[in-house]
Amino acid sequence: MIHHSEKSILVVGSLAFDDLEMPTGTFKDVIGGAATYSAIASSLLAPVRLVGVVGADFPQAMLDDLGKRGVDTKGVERQAGKTFRWHGRYSSDLASRETLDTQLNVFADFRPKIPKEFAASPLVMLGNIHPALQLEVLKQVERPQLVVADTMNFWIQGEPKTLAELLPKVDVLVINDEEVRELAGVHNLRRAAEEVRRRGPKALIVKRGEHGALLFDAQGVFFVPAYPLEEVCDPTGAGDSFAGGLLGYLASHDHTEPHALRRAMFFASAMGSFCVEGIGPRRLLSITKRDLRSRLDQFLAMVEYGGDLPFRE
Amino acid sequence: MIHHSEKSILVVGSLAFDDLEMPTGTFKDVIGGAATYSAIASSLLAPVRLVGVVGADFPQAMLDDLGKRGVDTKGVERQAGKTFRWHGRYSSDLASRETLDTQLNVFADFRPKIPKEFAASPLVMLGNIHPALQLEVLKQVERPQLVVADTMNFWIQGEPKTLAELLPKVDVLVINDEEVRELAGVHNLRRAAEEVRRRGPKALIVKRGEHGALLFDAQGVFFVPAYPLEEVCDPTGAGDSFAGGLLGYLASHDHTEPHALRRAMFFASAMGSFCVEGIGPRRLLSITKRDLRSRLDQFLAMVEYGGDLPFRE
Repeated sequence: MIHHSEKSILVVGSLAFDDLEMPTGTFKDVIGGAATYSAIASSLLAPVRLVGVVGADFPQAMLDDLGKRGVDTKGVERQAGKTFRWHGRYSSDLASRETLDTQLNVFADFRPKIPKEFAASPLVMLGNIHPALQLEVLKQVERPQLVVADTMNFWIQGEPKTLAELLPKVDVLVINDEEVRELAGVHNLRRAAEEVRRRGPKALIVKRGEHGALLFDAQGVFFVPAYPLEEVCDPTGAGDSFAGGLLGYLASHDHTEPHALRRAMFFASAMGSFCVEGIGPRRLLSITKRDLRSRLDQFLAMVEYGGDLPFRE
Repeated sequence: MIHHSEKSILVVGSLAFDDLEMPTGTFKDVIGGAATYSAIASSLLAPVRLVGVVGADFPQAMLDDLGKRGVDTKGVERQAGKTFRWHGRYSSDLASRETLDTQLNVFADFRPKIPKEFAASPLVMLGNIHPALQLEVLKQVERPQLVVADTMNFWIQGEPKTLAELLPKVDVLVINDEEVRELAGVHNLRRAAEEVRRRGPKALIVKRGEHGALLFDAQGVFFVPAYPLEEVCDPTGAGDSFAGGLLGYLASHDHTEPHALRRAMFFASAMGSFCVEGIGPRRLLSITKRDLRSRLDQFLAMVEYGGDLPFRE
């Protein structure tokens, strides 16, 4: 894939196998992991540098495919042992899921090592890993222009101090509404968002699944809808694809432009919508820029109201 | 209140007393009822004609106040006995509520009688009452330009045939996502919306509370966010205020204009957001057109992304 942009995105996080029990059947050994989804989504728009760890069982063909998409996988260590594995079961309406088993395997001792050639990456995506490791990544990179991070309740509850150290170094925090409320200790979403931003991130993006996403930053609040699909196949990786789409836009356009983050939210939501259309990253791997343009146009149609709200007082 | 528009809105439905157990305290004898909320919200923008029933205990002062707002209350029958009463308790996060008691009282035998002077109302709001009564209202009016209706799971389950008879006579059905799914017998929201529209309504609006609302019509899908408030006080009546705001816009502007329903969704969501700011209809009763204009501007800022999505293929 040839990209107009020279701005690369460093993506650090998990590569995995997922065993998925879906209402439509059971799917085993599905390629997964947050970094995988983010890298695939970003790579449609900009060059990606991937850092993570896999075991001996992870298919080289998948890494080769990523390479063809413009993902530099030299930062993906291959270790003896098994790849991180997640086993989950979704509810019949796909609205919730339970973890049946997690095997960290080679991911248990993961310490991200950023190759020298990656150290000057202008954009950095810190996938959802231990905040101490996210901090280690930032120590190994040279003043990135933009740092985007994800985290989860497990770290919010278990590593509050490390997370507090990380947050001022993050430009855009991308988490779900439950995590925002937990992190802030406040139920009201608007006040929770203010509290989270007070702790460091200049921008907070709240992912709400089928209900879309909210951006809180110095400009106020911005809202992007989710795309109402006729068929939702597998929500696994949708949030990571969302983050990948966000970074892909920011890397390939002027990310300092006033509406950059707002516009990036559409690309993010579009990538999330593609992700859920197939089992694992299958659909995401197949989409073209033309598919993306078409989905973006559908998004724009969804928010088109004629440009003003006439109102005779 | 003086309205530029001559187009009146006929609102038919419940007037009530609500006893509300909120996390902030218990509030008794709060003026409520779907028609009350819808009428108050609509009356900021257009003249309203209210049809319903109250008992001897309903304060005349409230009806007089409505009159001062441009709500013609000659269709509100006063009967011996008690007004409809609802007693509910909200969860600590206000996200859910349970009904502790419902006393239909004079509402049990309500048969809407549309005064002759109201028969030519160009816009009709059929509040959530028995679909047979909604049909009776339509028999008493002369070819309204636009019929908006609400319903609920109780009628969807218990009166499917009567509801099936009503739906082709409704232009805009305004219900929540659970009701859409129940009515269509399909979980996927997009396909459920298609199925509901196939049964009659030209447009379907899906209310999603704090997640905003979706409009499905011949133009496709449109999305309006909810306003993320710093304080949510009482969600009672928010959906009815939403419908009232929708009709208020459509009555006071050209409702056949291509973006009319989309624009009306912002007015609807704005009225819903004002409603939840106070216990009962208190806040809704206090807002001015200036407040509405200001809230609408906040809504427009929430969806502003610069007007296009540049994307270099």
